[in-house]
Amino acid sequence: MQKPTITLVGAGPGDPELISIKGAKALTKAKVILYDALVHPDTLDYADDTALKIYVGKRAGKHKCRQEAINKMLVDYAFSHGDVVRLKGGDPFIFGRGHEELEYAQAFGIQVNVIPGISSVNTTALEHIPLTKRGINESFWVITATKSDGQLAKDVWLAAQSTATVVLLMGVRKLPQIVALFKRIGKGNTPVAMIQNGSLDTQKIALGKVDNIVEVALEKDIQAPAIIVIGETVRLHPKFNYQPVIEAHQKIENSNIPESSSNAF
Amino acid sequence: MQKPTITLVGAGPGDPELISIKGAKALTKAKVILYDALVHPDTLDYADDTALKIYVGKRAGKHKCRQEAINKMLVDYAFSHGDVVRLKGGDPFIFGRGHEELEYAQAFGIQVNVIPGISSVNTTALEHIPLTKRGINESFWVITATKSDGQLAKDVWLAAQSTATVVLLMGVRKLPQIVALFKRIGKGNTPVAMIQNGSLDTQKIALGKVDNIVEVALEKDIQAPAIIVIGETVRLHPKFNYQPVIEAHQKIENSNIPESSSNAF
Repeated sequence: MQKPTITLVGAGPGDPELISIKGAKALTKAKVILYDALVHPDTLDYADDTALKIYVGKRAGKHKCRQEAINKMLVDYAFSHGDVVRLKGGDPFIFGRGHEELEYAQAFGIQVNVIPGISSVNTTALEHIPLTKRGINESFWVITATKSDGQLAKDVWLAAQSTATVVLLMGVRKLPQIVALFKRIGKGNTPVAMIQNGSLDTQKIALGKVDNIVEVALEKDIQAPAIIVIGETVRLHPKFNYQPVIEAHQKIENSNIPESSSNAF
Repeated sequence: MQKPTITLVGAGPGDPELISIKGAKALTKAKVILYDALVHPDTLDYADDTALKIYVGKRAGKHKCRQEAINKMLVDYAFSHGDVVRLKGGDPFIFGRGHEELEYAQAFGIQVNVIPGISSVNTTALEHIPLTKRGINESFWVITATKSDGQLAKDVWLAAQSTATVVLLMGVRKLPQIVALFKRIGKGNTPVAMIQNGSLDTQKIALGKVDNIVEVALEKDIQAPAIIVIGETVRLHPKFNYQPVIEAHQKIENSNIPESSSNAF
């Protein structure tokens, strides 16, 4: 029998082609795959036909039991089948409880490998919103809005006072509280984007500012899971009609522009 | 001739297999590829043999000229060759100046697509350090230590006061200043990791705390580019001998442990 091994693989934000080549190769070799609700079904096509593919997505109200059951299944399958992949949406080490699975398995002497993934945080790029931009900001801050006890995370309060692009995960149901907090410190005009299903065909966005994002999200029917992005870089989204600082003469000097595209400016 | 298109592709943190499948496919289709210093040469193997592969890595002291020259090349090649890929280390929208290239090209009416990448930030996972961990923290904060004017970013000061896992990019030369700042607010005992060449065969780590990381980094000969990770989640690195809260009876009840691995606890 093969040595028991567990590989935590980040499936990426949704699009099955946004998994890494290394992650897809790990799936191809796996004897057992435990995958959760945010993994696109087509991602499993990278796996061998004979691999066991087990859905361990959440059922409401059973989180604690579920995590313990997943930990136990990972260990049991590693001993019985050898090569197990735990396939998680996004990146396994960003709010993924990946490290809990790692330490549980390591306590049994099982080798655990981690293959990072592209996080839903990075789907701002698909809406042409950079997480950072020279001259606008120096950082981005990723926060879970909802702690395990159901409360709004304290860090949100700190983040609201910074100049970082603030990305909130698991925040859709807490949106009114988040907005209230940013308003309280005078950031009603800060632009906000909510991106649902980033990288999937169903990707959609609500764009507004702190003062009106609750209404816009309602109008656009944004549902969880969606990321909330708050900060000045959001203003770079095309719909805000931001004018980049590129002088016309510079463009004309620097490039051979065919007639067909010259009307773009 | 094909329609001019520029695709900004994140190459990932170093390992050529950590590019996404979508990114590799974009390379395969590209007529011209502009790549920078942090891209592993083997990543170019995904490209067609006939594609033009142009190195646009930095030369000391010529940053400004370089960026303008890259912008111009992107646009010129898109008009002359059609399908251009701009291949950037990590993720193109995290301190990558990717958005500057996007807005420059869009001003010429060129369609720009973005394919996110796994950032060097995520290489903490390869050292089994999670960016977030339930019960320890609620957020992580990614900051460039060095601003375009060469100063230490102001956000570092704010971050030092938060409970976030703080990840500093481009900070190796500023390490003494960063450390001084964390010490000043009484965080001398906070654990710190510096990871160089994360995901490459040459990956190495310096582990310590704020009070001694300068000496450890010197001893381990950590060179730029490396990421600096400061926060309580760093304590989960195996070398800190952190004891996870898993009770022995729970393990024995929950799983069939073969003799050979039972000595792991």
